[in-house]
Amino acid sequence: MHQEVAHLGHVELLTPRPDESMTFFTDVLGLEVTQRQGQSVFLRAWGDYERHTLKLTEAPTAGVGHTAWRAMSPEALERRAAVLAQNGHGLGWIDGDAGHGKSYQFHDPDGHLMELYYETEWYEPEAQLKPFLKNQPQRYTGRGAAVRRLDHINMLCAAVTPNREFMADYLGFKLREHIILDDGTEAGAWISVTPLVHDIAYTLDATRARGRLHHLAWATDTREEVLRAADICLEHNVFIETGPSKHAVTHGFFLYMYEPGGNRIEIFSGGYLIFAPDWRPIVWNQQERARGQAWGLKLPHSFHTYGTPHVDIAEVELLDIPVVGVE
Amino acid sequence: MHQEVAHLGHVELLTPRPDESMTFFTDVLGLEVTQRQGQSVFLRAWGDYERHTLKLTEAPTAGVGHTAWRAMSPEALERRAAVLAQNGHGLGWIDGDAGHGKSYQFHDPDGHLMELYYETEWYEPEAQLKPFLKNQPQRYTGRGAAVRRLDHINMLCAAVTPNREFMADYLGFKLREHIILDDGTEAGAWISVTPLVHDIAYTLDATRARGRLHHLAWATDTREEVLRAADICLEHNVFIETGPSKHAVTHGFFLYMYEPGGNRIEIFSGGYLIFAPDWRPIVWNQQERARGQAWGLKLPHSFHTYGTPHVDIAEVELLDIPVVGVE
Amino acid sequence: MHQEVAHLGHVELLTPRPDESMTFFTDVLGLEVTQRQGQSVFLRAWGDYERHTLKLTEAPTAGVGHTAWRAMSPEALERRAAVLAQNGHGLGWIDGDAGHGKSYQFHDPDGHLMELYYETEWYEPEAQLKPFLKNQPQRYTGRGAAVRRLDHINMLCAAVTPNREFMADYLGFKLREHIILDDGTEAGAWISVTPLVHDIAYTLDATRARGRLHHLAWATDTREEVLRAADICLEHNVFIETGPSKHAVTHGFFLYMYEPGGNRIEIFSGGYLIFAPDWRPIVWNQQERARGQAWGLKLPHSFHTYGTPHVDIAEVELLDIPVVGVE
Amino acid sequence: MHQEVAHLGHVELLTPRPDESMTFFTDVLGLEVTQRQGQSVFLRAWGDYERHTLKLTEAPTAGVGHTAWRAMSPEALERRAAVLAQNGHGLGWIDGDAGHGKSYQFHDPDGHLMELYYETEWYEPEAQLKPFLKNQPQRYTGRGAAVRRLDHINMLCAAVTPNREFMADYLGFKLREHIILDDGTEAGAWISVTPLVHDIAYTLDATRARGRLHHLAWATDTREEVLRAADICLEHNVFIETGPSKHAVTHGFFLYMYEPGGNRIEIFSGGYLIFAPDWRPIVWNQQERARGQAWGLKLPHSFHTYGTPHVDIAEVELLDIPVVGVE
Repeated sequence: MHQEVAHLGHVELLTPRPDESMTFFTDVLGLEVTQRQGQSVFLRAWGDYERHTLKLTEAPTAGVGHTAWRAMSPEALERRAAVLAQNGHGLGWIDGDAGHGKSYQFHDPDGHLMELYYETEWYEPEAQLKPFLKNQPQRYTGRGAAVRRLDHINMLCAAVTPNREFMADYLGFKLREHIILDDGTEAGAWISVTPLVHDIAYTLDATRARGRLHHLAWATDTREEVLRAADICLEHNVFIETGPSKHAVTHGFFLYMYEPGGNRIEIFSGGYLIFAPDWRPIVWNQQERARGQAWGLKLPHSFHTYGTPHVDIAEVELLDIPVVGVE
Repeated sequence: MHQEVAHLGHVELLTPRPDESMTFFTDVLGLEVTQRQGQSVFLRAWGDYERHTLKLTEAPTAGVGHTAWRAMSPEALERRAAVLAQNGHGLGWIDGDAGHGKSYQFHDPDGHLMELYYETEWYEPEAQLKPFLKNQPQRYTGRGAAVRRLDHINMLCAAVTPNREFMADYLGFKLREHIILDDGTEAGAWISVTPLVHDIAYTLDATRARGRLHHLAWATDTREEVLRAADICLEHNVFIETGPSKHAVTHGFFLYMYEPGGNRIEIFSGGYLIFAPDWRPIVWNQQERARGQAWGLKLPHSFHTYGTPHVDIAEVELLDIPVVGVE
Repeated sequence: MHQEVAHLGHVELLTPRPDESMTFFTDVLGLEVTQRQGQSVFLRAWGDYERHTLKLTEAPTAGVGHTAWRAMSPEALERRAAVLAQNGHGLGWIDGDAGHGKSYQFHDPDGHLMELYYETEWYEPEAQLKPFLKNQPQRYTGRGAAVRRLDHINMLCAAVTPNREFMADYLGFKLREHIILDDGTEAGAWISVTPLVHDIAYTLDATRARGRLHHLAWATDTREEVLRAADICLEHNVFIETGPSKHAVTHGFFLYMYEPGGNRIEIFSGGYLIFAPDWRPIVWNQQERARGQAWGLKLPHSFHTYGTPHVDIAEVELLDIPVVGVE
Repeated sequence: MHQEVAHLGHVELLTPRPDESMTFFTDVLGLEVTQRQGQSVFLRAWGDYERHTLKLTEAPTAGVGHTAWRAMSPEALERRAAVLAQNGHGLGWIDGDAGHGKSYQFHDPDGHLMELYYETEWYEPEAQLKPFLKNQPQRYTGRGAAVRRLDHINMLCAAVTPNREFMADYLGFKLREHIILDDGTEAGAWISVTPLVHDIAYTLDATRARGRLHHLAWATDTREEVLRAADICLEHNVFIETGPSKHAVTHGFFLYMYEPGGNRIEIFSGGYLIFAPDWRPIVWNQQERARGQAWGLKLPHSFHTYGTPHVDIAEVELLDIPVVGVE
C-alpha cells in the first residue's frame, strides 16, 4: 500500500477537571488556546502547522475521546473510508469539527474511537503570535516546557496483534518494533506511517479493560528541553511518574507525568527516524525487556497498570504479564 | 506521484588527498570503513542501516562522483528508470557496486551524476562493532564527532529552477523552501522526498561552472554534538568555514568545514520535519535573506563562491547575485 | 592577600528608556522585580541568593551607575575601605541602599563608580516564587531566557594596566588572562576574586572615553539555554550583536545583545573554573587574537567601539588598536 | 579561618583488577596516562592543570588509597600540618610522590588516609596532546566520556558529624548541605573549601565499616555529556547503578557506575556554585529526603550499602537508617 495516512492529526482528551487541565496544557506544556466550543477547548503547539492538535473536553472521566489521522489526499480519505466501511469497521462520516473538514469515524479493534480527515485549516497566527522566521508556524513563546509538536499516542488494549494488524491492513501502518513474550503473546507494538519510529503504539492493558489511553506525547527538539521540562513540572507540582531517561525501544528520551485530569502525558525527544522502505521490525523478547530501559532504569509498577479511564487495580484480576517495558 | 524515491542512499566524494581525507572521515567525523576496492574506500556512520553511505575515491580533483538514491521498491526503480529513459535523461543501467544491486544512472540538468537503486545490503556489524541495543545498527564508538547518519547534499548549479523541476517531475521531490531574487531568479531550492526539510538542495553557482558540489552533510541528534564537533575540528586543525549557528532556511544548526581533499562538509542538527501532504513552500525574498542566518550571522564570501571541483574566482566573471544565504 | 572581596554583588544600569528596559529584563532575560524606589527598579535572577543583583535606574543616557562588590566579612570591608581611603582612592561611606547595608564608594582609575558592602538581605521569596527544592533561592519560572545569576561585568577603559593593578592591589583581584599587543599595550585583562575565570574584565576603549560599560553578563547553566535565548531574542526583536559562539579567551559560550536602553548585555555559559592558588596568567599576543573567537568567528566592528554611554565614533579619532577580541 | 586548602588535588584508587580498571579509566572516562611507577599508574583528565589527578594502584581489594588536598601556599601547608600534629591527628611528612612535593599525611576520624601538599608539577603536554587553545591544559581528545576534571569524593563513615567537624576545624571546609534524621543523626554532609557545592561528602556507612569509599566523581561541562557517557557505558558493558538524573541535594546531574575494580564512579555536571561568604547550610529532614532525587527517582538499595572495600551485607547487621539519599 502506498502511504494513505499522512500523520497523527489531533487527539481529543477527556478530563473531569477542565480548568486545571487547561492550566497544565498552557502553563506546563506551553500550548496555545485557539478556540473554545461548548465543553471543549482547542489547543496547539508552536510547531504544529494545523490550527489545533489537541481538543480538551470536559467529561466525567479521563481518557481519550478520539484520535484523528490526516489522510494524504482527498482521494486517500475516500479510499480508506470505503475499505473500512466495506469491512464493517466504519462508523460513518461526520461533518468535521473546528479546524477540519468531514471525517470518517471508526473504532480500532480495542474500541478506541478514531477518525480520518483531509481538509484542514492551516494555522494563521494572530499578531502577537506571529513568528520572526516565516518558516515557523507560530512564535516560540518559551512558556513552560514549550513543546514543539504533537508526536504520538500510546493505547492500552486487550490484545496487541489485532490492533496492529488492523492499523496495517486498513491504514498502512508499518511495524517498527514489538515485544513478544515467551508464551508468544505480543505485549507491545510500535507502528508508524511516517519515518517517526512510532506514530502510535499498542501495549497490553493488564487490567483487561478496553479502549484505554496509556499516554499522549509531545516532542521537543532536544533532550535538554526534556530535562528543563522536568524542572518545570517540579515547580508546578506536576506528578512525574518516571524519567527523564532513555527508552531502549525507540531510543526516545522520555518524561512521563499525569496531567490534573489524570491522563498520562509524555514529553519526548530523539527517537530515531526510519527511511528504509523495507524496514526489518525489531523483535524484543521477554528477557531482553527485563533489563529495563536503555540505561537500566526500571519503570514503576504504575507504568504497567495505570491508564485512563481509571481502573481500580484492587478490584480487578491483573493479567499475569511479566513487567515488560511499555515505552 | 506517490513516493518512489525513499531517501538519499550514498554519495561518492572525490579527493586528491585520499589518505588525509580518510583520516578526516574516520577520526573527525567518526565514520567506519567497511570496504576498500580499487581507488575507493567505503564508509558508514553508526546510525546508517545500509552497509555504507560514503564512497571516497581518489581522483585528480575534489568534487562529487555520484549521488545515489534508494527507490521505494523494485517496481519504483523500474518505473523511474523507464521515465528517465523515455525522456532522454537516462544513462543506462550498471550492475551495481559494493553494497548495492543494479542501479540506473542519469545526470541532473546541471550535470551531476546520479543513480537510483533498490537492492541494498543491510549492515551486519562484526563483533567489535555490535551495538548494545539491538535497534541500533552499529555500536556508538563516540570517536570524533560521531555523526549519526548521512543527511543531505547541496549542489551548486548554473540555474536552480530546471534542476528543481527535474527532481520533482522525474523523482517526486517536493519543494520545501526557496529563494526568489528581486529579478525573479530562483537562487536556491530545498527539496525532499522524506519529511526531512531537504534531502538535496540546489543553489546558484556564482562561478557559472557546472556539476559542482556545495557540501555534503551528516546529521547528529543534538546541537550539543555540533558544538562538540567544533572543538574536535579545532584539535584536528580542520578548517571551520562558519558556524556553529542556526540557519534561517531549514532551521538547521550547522557547522561547515573543508575536508583535506577540499570538499565542504556540514555537520547538521535539528532542521524541522514536514508531515503535511500539502506543504506550502516557503518563499524567501532578497531582502529577507539579506539579514543573514537565523540569529543574524553573515556567512563568509567563500560560502557563496567556493565549491568542488575548485574554480579560481580570480579567473572567472562571477555572477552578479546578491549574497544570499546558501544554507 | 587573603580573599577580601567575595563576589560581584550587584550592578546599577542606567537607561533612558526605563519601561522598555524593564520589559527586556523581565520578559527576555527573565528577571524578577523585587522593589521599586524613586527612579529605580530592583531585579534578581532566580539563582541569586541576595535580594537583588540589578538596579535599573532611569537616566538621560545609558551606562553603568555603580558596580558593587560584596566583602568577605565586616572586617574585610573595613580593611578595604581603610586602604582605599589611605591611598586617596575612596569617596567615603554611604548608608547603603535597598537590600544591603553601608557601603564604601570609590572610583577605579578609569572613573567607574564602585562600592564595597558586606551586610546584605538574603532573598526570601513570596509564596508564588517559592521553589520546590529548598536549596534553590527562588522558583524557576522558565520565563524568557531564565538566566540563573549575575555573572560578570566588562568595563571599557582608556588604559587597562592601571585598572587591573588597582583591582589587584586594593581588592585582591587575580589576573587570569590578558592580551598584550605587539607594541606592549595591554588591550584587555580578565580578572577575578572567585574561581570564575573573570568577575570583571577591562578592555581598551577605542573612543578614548572614560568610565564606559562594555557589557554586563548573566550566566546560564548550559549552552543549550544560550541557544534558546537567541531564539527568544528573535521573537522579541532584540538586536543580537553576535553569537552564540565560543570565546577563545575564557572559553565562555556567549550571546551579545543590546537592551532597549542601549546597554550591551551578554548571556554567558561555560567559562572554565580556576582552583589553582598559583594560577599562571594566560598571555595572548596580537597574532593569536587575530584569528578570532574559538571557532574562528570574527566579532563585528561595533564590538570594539560600541559601549555606553554612547560615543559617536564619527566624531572622535579612534585609537589605532588592532581589532583584538574583547571577550 | 581564611582559605588554607585550595582544592581536591588527587586521589589514589585501589583496584584488584588493574588492567581492566586502566581500560575503564582511559577508554570509558577518557583519561590520559602520564606515568607508571611500581604497581601504580598516574592519570589525568584533559582539564586538570596538575600533571595527574588519579593514582591507580593494584591492591588486593578496591577502595581509596589516599585523598590529597592542595594547600593555598607553602605557609598554609606548614600551618595546617602544625595544627594537625599538635592535635594528635597527624601521621607525619612524606617526601611526596610523582608530580608533587612533600606532603603531610593524616587520617580523618573515620580512618581515611589523606594528605596535604603544595608543590606540584603543572602539566606540560607532549606534542600529540597539545591543545589548540593555549588556555586549555591539554588537547580535548573526545575519547570516551571525555570528562573534564576530577571533581569530588564521597566517603562512607561510621559517623558523619565528627568527620565534618574535623574537616571544618582543621582544614576549613564549610558545610553546604546536610541531612538530619528524625532521631538527630546526621546522615550525610556536603562540604567544600571552593565554591563547588561539595569537594567532599561524608555519608553514613550502613555496614558500620570504616574508611570506605562511596564514590569518586569527575565533572563534565554539560548534562549532554553525562547522557552521552551513559551510552558509552552501555557500549562498554560498564554497570550503570543509577542515573542519569538530577540530585535534590547539590542539584548535581549524575551518572553512577562501577569500574571493573569495584569502585563506584560518578560522572557529574551542574551542581550550583556558592559565592556567599556567609552561606546558610541547607538542612534536609528525613521526610524531605524520602521523596527521592530531584525529579522523584528512587536510588537503588545498593546505593545505600555498597562501597569499597566490599563488605558482604549478608554478613553484617546493617544500621537501621532510613533509606535517605546519599547524593
